[in-house]
Amino acid sequence: MEILGGPLYSVAGAGESHGPAITTIINGCPPGLKIDRRQVQDYLDRRRPGGNKHGTPRNEKDKVVFLSGIYDAGDHEALLSGPELSVAVDGDRFQTESYGVGYSTGEPIAAIVLSTSKKSRDYTQLTGEQGEVRPGHTDLVKFHQSQEFVDVRGGGRSSYRSTISDVIGGSIARRFLYEHFGTVILSSITSVGPRNSSLKLSTHIDHILAAGDSSRIDAETLKQIEQSLQGNEIHTIDQAFASEAAKLIMRTRSDGDSLGAEVEVVAVNVPPLVGEPLYQSLKVRLMGALGGLNAVQSCEIGAGKAVVARRGSENNDPIRHGGYQANSHGGLLGGITTGMPLVARVGFKPTSTIHKPQQSIRKNYEEIDFQLEKGRHDPCVGIRAGVTLESRLAIELMNAVLMHQSQRFDADAFKLF
Amino acid sequence: MEILGGPLYSVAGAGESHGPAITTIINGCPPGLKIDRRQVQDYLDRRRPGGNKHGTPRNEKDKVVFLSGIYDAGDHEALLSGPELSVAVDGDRFQTESYGVGYSTGEPIAAIVLSTSKKSRDYTQLTGEQGEVRPGHTDLVKFHQSQEFVDVRGGGRSSYRSTISDVIGGSIARRFLYEHFGTVILSSITSVGPRNSSLKLSTHIDHILAAGDSSRIDAETLKQIEQSLQGNEIHTIDQAFASEAAKLIMRTRSDGDSLGAEVEVVAVNVPPLVGEPLYQSLKVRLMGALGGLNAVQSCEIGAGKAVVARRGSENNDPIRHGGYQANSHGGLLGGITTGMPLVARVGFKPTSTIHKPQQSIRKNYEEIDFQLEKGRHDPCVGIRAGVTLESRLAIELMNAVLMHQSQRFDADAFKLF
Amino acid sequence: MEILGGPLYSVAGAGESHGPAITTIINGCPPGLKIDRRQVQDYLDRRRPGGNKHGTPRNEKDKVVFLSGIYDAGDHEALLSGPELSVAVDGDRFQTESYGVGYSTGEPIAAIVLSTSKKSRDYTQLTGEQGEVRPGHTDLVKFHQSQEFVDVRGGGRSSYRSTISDVIGGSIARRFLYEHFGTVILSSITSVGPRNSSLKLSTHIDHILAAGDSSRIDAETLKQIEQSLQGNEIHTIDQAFASEAAKLIMRTRSDGDSLGAEVEVVAVNVPPLVGEPLYQSLKVRLMGALGGLNAVQSCEIGAGKAVVARRGSENNDPIRHGGYQANSHGGLLGGITTGMPLVARVGFKPTSTIHKPQQSIRKNYEEIDFQLEKGRHDPCVGIRAGVTLESRLAIELMNAVLMHQSQRFDADAFKLF
Amino acid sequence: MEILGGPLYSVAGAGESHGPAITTIINGCPPGLKIDRRQVQDYLDRRRPGGNKHGTPRNEKDKVVFLSGIYDAGDHEALLSGPELSVAVDGDRFQTESYGVGYSTGEPIAAIVLSTSKKSRDYTQLTGEQGEVRPGHTDLVKFHQSQEFVDVRGGGRSSYRSTISDVIGGSIARRFLYEHFGTVILSSITSVGPRNSSLKLSTHIDHILAAGDSSRIDAETLKQIEQSLQGNEIHTIDQAFASEAAKLIMRTRSDGDSLGAEVEVVAVNVPPLVGEPLYQSLKVRLMGALGGLNAVQSCEIGAGKAVVARRGSENNDPIRHGGYQANSHGGLLGGITTGMPLVARVGFKPTSTIHKPQQSIRKNYEEIDFQLEKGRHDPCVGIRAGVTLESRLAIELMNAVLMHQSQRFDADAFKLF
Repeated sequence: MEILGGPLYSVAGAGESHGPAITTIINGCPPGLKIDRRQVQDYLDRRRPGGNKHGTPRNEKDKVVFLSGIYDAGDHEALLSGPELSVAVDGDRFQTESYGVGYSTGEPIAAIVLSTSKKSRDYTQLTGEQGEVRPGHTDLVKFHQSQEFVDVRGGGRSSYRSTISDVIGGSIARRFLYEHFGTVILSSITSVGPRNSSLKLSTHIDHILAAGDSSRIDAETLKQIEQSLQGNEIHTIDQAFASEAAKLIMRTRSDGDSLGAEVEVVAVNVPPLVGEPLYQSLKVRLMGALGGLNAVQSCEIGAGKAVVARRGSENNDPIRHGGYQANSHGGLLGGITTGMPLVARVGFKPTSTIHKPQQSIRKNYEEIDFQLEKGRHDPCVGIRAGVTLESRLAIELMNAVLMHQSQRFDADAFKLF
Repeated sequence: MEILGGPLYSVAGAGESHGPAITTIINGCPPGLKIDRRQVQDYLDRRRPGGNKHGTPRNEKDKVVFLSGIYDAGDHEALLSGPELSVAVDGDRFQTESYGVGYSTGEPIAAIVLSTSKKSRDYTQLTGEQGEVRPGHTDLVKFHQSQEFVDVRGGGRSSYRSTISDVIGGSIARRFLYEHFGTVILSSITSVGPRNSSLKLSTHIDHILAAGDSSRIDAETLKQIEQSLQGNEIHTIDQAFASEAAKLIMRTRSDGDSLGAEVEVVAVNVPPLVGEPLYQSLKVRLMGALGGLNAVQSCEIGAGKAVVARRGSENNDPIRHGGYQANSHGGLLGGITTGMPLVARVGFKPTSTIHKPQQSIRKNYEEIDFQLEKGRHDPCVGIRAGVTLESRLAIELMNAVLMHQSQRFDADAFKLF
Repeated sequence: MEILGGPLYSVAGAGESHGPAITTIINGCPPGLKIDRRQVQDYLDRRRPGGNKHGTPRNEKDKVVFLSGIYDAGDHEALLSGPELSVAVDGDRFQTESYGVGYSTGEPIAAIVLSTSKKSRDYTQLTGEQGEVRPGHTDLVKFHQSQEFVDVRGGGRSSYRSTISDVIGGSIARRFLYEHFGTVILSSITSVGPRNSSLKLSTHIDHILAAGDSSRIDAETLKQIEQSLQGNEIHTIDQAFASEAAKLIMRTRSDGDSLGAEVEVVAVNVPPLVGEPLYQSLKVRLMGALGGLNAVQSCEIGAGKAVVARRGSENNDPIRHGGYQANSHGGLLGGITTGMPLVARVGFKPTSTIHKPQQSIRKNYEEIDFQLEKGRHDPCVGIRAGVTLESRLAIELMNAVLMHQSQRFDADAFKLF
Repeated sequence: MEILGGPLYSVAGAGESHGPAITTIINGCPPGLKIDRRQVQDYLDRRRPGGNKHGTPRNEKDKVVFLSGIYDAGDHEALLSGPELSVAVDGDRFQTESYGVGYSTGEPIAAIVLSTSKKSRDYTQLTGEQGEVRPGHTDLVKFHQSQEFVDVRGGGRSSYRSTISDVIGGSIARRFLYEHFGTVILSSITSVGPRNSSLKLSTHIDHILAAGDSSRIDAETLKQIEQSLQGNEIHTIDQAFASEAAKLIMRTRSDGDSLGAEVEVVAVNVPPLVGEPLYQSLKVRLMGALGGLNAVQSCEIGAGKAVVARRGSENNDPIRHGGYQANSHGGLLGGITTGMPLVARVGFKPTSTIHKPQQSIRKNYEEIDFQLEKGRHDPCVGIRAGVTLESRLAIELMNAVLMHQSQRFDADAFKLF
């Protein structure tokens, strides 16, 4: 099943790049969470192609339309203040308002985002047995896996467009986490191709924590970090690196080539004690959800790969009565949260779609010199992925919170009459 | 999670009675199945309020709009022949075609059905701490379970309207089953209140099988049965009973009261050998899916409750080289299909919503004499439930087919280069 | 997967009738529940063949051995007071104590029960392509489903012996439910073949509730009911019926034939508000778990099939400020518990194994007159099934309790430092 | 739930380090696979402490005892040739043979491994509110997560001992994969602390493939690689590195300190086309299963983190009619297998348990200078982890194979009469 997270908080997604819409169903949001469509839209806007200068020029508007799971008995007007939706069929037109602002009812929350900027271009290059295989893409395996029934338009379901569901589901999870724990989830690009930032977000957070006396950071400070991330040319905390990387991306785009990237994602003010211990631990889940995202080839938690070269006496984080004194462990011990920031770093391969000629085949295995006819693409897919990583982290963290909650008996939850 | 079936073929549903839409995501349909929107619409039309003379007068059009998971590289026009969908938001209007006819790609199939005939009536009677509790309904438990955030409009998610997802998911499953096995799934009402039909569908099927020499029935004969079911005043094979029951329903409606009903569902030309053996057997799944439907209080497989009074020597079905000679077992032995018709009977309680006064309370436990202010309702919820039962059976049977398929190794499925 | 319940509280079972052991793994028991091996053994003793006069004469001892998930830092002696387990292999012998009394740690609880009374008899009658098919059994379908690899000894995995896992998992669930809510789960046989009891357990419970002023019954009264159930010749509340039924069973056994039965299961002092609303509602789950048990052909909740003939004005249970005034609904509305007793009735077919000759085939479809050579069997499988039904109800109810708990936020559950 | 893999092939594990036994239940092995207890034992022997010179000196024998799911109608003697199991309880002794060699029946396979070398040592240092917290361990979070009911003996369930279940489940998966596809799964240590091997296994495999003309390697060549891996002082393909690393481990052990390590795991002769596309893709699953193992902090697929610095024109693997010409992609495109070797690299932190003094606290937050009293431990946990990684990869790959199989309709699988 195409489901993120779960079994308690989960996000089902459907929809291919050039299909009519991306559909999302969220299960497991407890009742009573205030949901405002515009907040979710803000996160979607960060994900959107065209949402920054260095992504693909394709300009989807990606407006989210909420269809279920939200209510407000006291304010039907705010509740129904979402976009108007209409369907024309067999000569009739049906229409309805959709949800704007309300409270979760505990029942499934559904949303759609229409795909409207797709060009009805010619896919002959990629279609059928004679269709050409784009190196680095799933074209060949999906063609044969699906017994030739794959949708080739714009990458089909394997397009980054499907991460719209991740972001919608993540947006609601982060509202829940923020409301109950003050949790804030941020990301920062650390590398673009061979260029590396000189400051990591996790290091910056460590410094702030070291200056305080707890594992928490106040909302105001976090808001400032968020603004500085968004103010730079690409989504990174290091301004100089942002400019340099932006130039490199432009140069590479004009070369018809592409670049890899590394992104760090950090959650602050994390609820401690959540995560199952072994086979479904939060570490298993985060490694899978973050490391398994399209185009990702590496995933690290905490100090990550650097721990290989260390001795235990360097790597073990000391503990004092106020908390952990360092965060090599990246907020997880035994797959359970310690309350320290959750830290992960993810390495993206360079975008597979390039304009340089490459050795390839047709789907019937005939050899060709592949040259892409046209198409709009990110030269560096990693730089737009931050909000998706944040969202996936939020989904898994929220599920872990609910799992832990389920184990704490509270007699008040079972009262009637 | 709000999911029917699974883990291989599953249907996720979302949406409350008076919300903007019912949303459905189907996972696990193998690639290459031809899907025609109009066939699915036909099943939805059977489910629809107003779809027969004796259901609720509410007249939803319930037009299905397919949003993903379907493709046809060779005929984009047919593919995009579905309803036109549009969204108006922030002064812009976005629009797109939706899918009409194509082939499943193996990826999630999403669909929405707008809710447009809902009246913006006054729900004050049911809302908040002073809200009145309708006897036989979930009003009280859902109010307290949700910590007061439940959507009370039209029964919210607990409305029969949510079975739109069952029917959409079931329609696709039955296409698959029909195409590969010639499976046809029918239902017939056997009781309405104290009146019982004199002919059961399963008995009729038994007679046809006894006259032949296999456990299969030809498509033509099945089509005739289907037509006779649909031609009667209510969906039953017994015409005299249909007329009598229809009169009883009208009389009961004018009394402001309601009636129970029993419905039999039968699948013919069932693939044998499918079903896991114990804890997730097809019997477990069908008892749950059929017996767990809203308003159902009993579920029987095969000869059902009648077997209690029998001896083994009467009840065991004899076997000859051509197959089972009788079907007390209702098509399942040890939870595995035998190829004989799957037979289940389900008892529905009388619709809880009645116009007669009843003893009840407010949600704050204050006693009242409850009298429904207004609302449109089926006097006999069972008579419209047949297509939902057929759909749920199809979903579980299809999942069992795929589970069995997964255990048969076929080297051809793993070829590339 | 061979799993009962879940996703939060679940019971995985493994093991065939004449294999070395039945193995059980329980996931999701919260930490801190006191578990005493002897209490679980008491429930297993009720399930055991030979545990009553009218079951099969096979006399397994069925001693449970706990292998994980239990601890008591303060009393290692009690903790390790379970059976001693040893393994002889390659000339070495390894041995260990097992758990006796301790507290759940929240991690998986495993247990095994050895199968030691199996007779190494000759299975030639049932084995291979020439093997004979026992009417009413899974012999034929499992042979072909498994591509001839099925274990035919004693019914293999389809034997009632596999319900050992149900009972172990249920025993721990009922401890949890009793400790937190005082929940007690009982069962009573209501029919044996054509004979019916004149008093139902649910009716008896209704009378006790009607005499009090709440939906609860005190522990002392429940203990008395339990004792009277166990004191009778078969497990039923109606003493006269018990004697009569026992005689009928003996007569039928000597005829070489078998009998159906109906069993009612009732849970008292049920936590209200638990159960998901639709597709995985507690009604779906109970219908599946109870109605899907081996040999069951019907399942009813509350007033069950009788509701079909009723009008809504009779069937809706009135509500006063102290609670529901009747229990037609059997403790569930919309699949959510109301706090009234959970009531289900289950109909078992007559045991398929009989000694009378029957028409059958070999597994290669050759016709035979089937005559069982030998074997030990219950003439009435239903009469020993009560404890299994109680256990399955406990497992599903416990899972629903944890699901509901997961939705209620409690800041205290997330504290460290 | 404590389950690896699934939903089709899954492994449930239970058991804590110093409990009576580790219990394993495997679901989803298709019928007809030959299972030989001694082959599984061989893999367990590789995992076993004491199984190599540089692991912990604790010497468990770890003999696997199969309890269900295996049968051989033709050879009961071979079937029952496993260890003899006995239980002493209440003055009685029960005993049974267990399974030696037979065929899977398609039903759950259960196994136990007794824990018999555990020393009944004193755990006062770690027990209760005064218990000391070992830096780098889960002591503190599990104590508070479990509300003080955690089993502290030998790390409890968080011990590496729980990976016995991974290895048993993996052993059966790799038999299946080898029988149907010739798949062989190997691992090689690439780093121990700051020392790196000069030859990677994946590079060695690449060279062999480059010399041939397909993506397959013959069994003989693979057997030779396996032998050279096992012949070296630690499990690596680079003999010089093995000796050097072994010396470093010994030195570090005598310093009372520990070392990190990196391990590469490679599957050869991989069935192509398997893996779901997005949210449950094989990449998601492998990143989770491998990257989520105890003590792991990083996980890479294919070229891994190195791709960040590359351009697309370097990183895309060229394709010719015979197959992919390079394997930057590590055998997965879009989370689907290409038939090229599956390659992953995993970074382990240095063992948390060291003998050097460290800053820590008691579970009640009182500060201490922590000094471990005693205990037996691996100075480099990574070097024994290879077989566990291979096993987890096998489990996920097998599940993906069955998932793909379920999508390919084969009419022959549904025949009876």
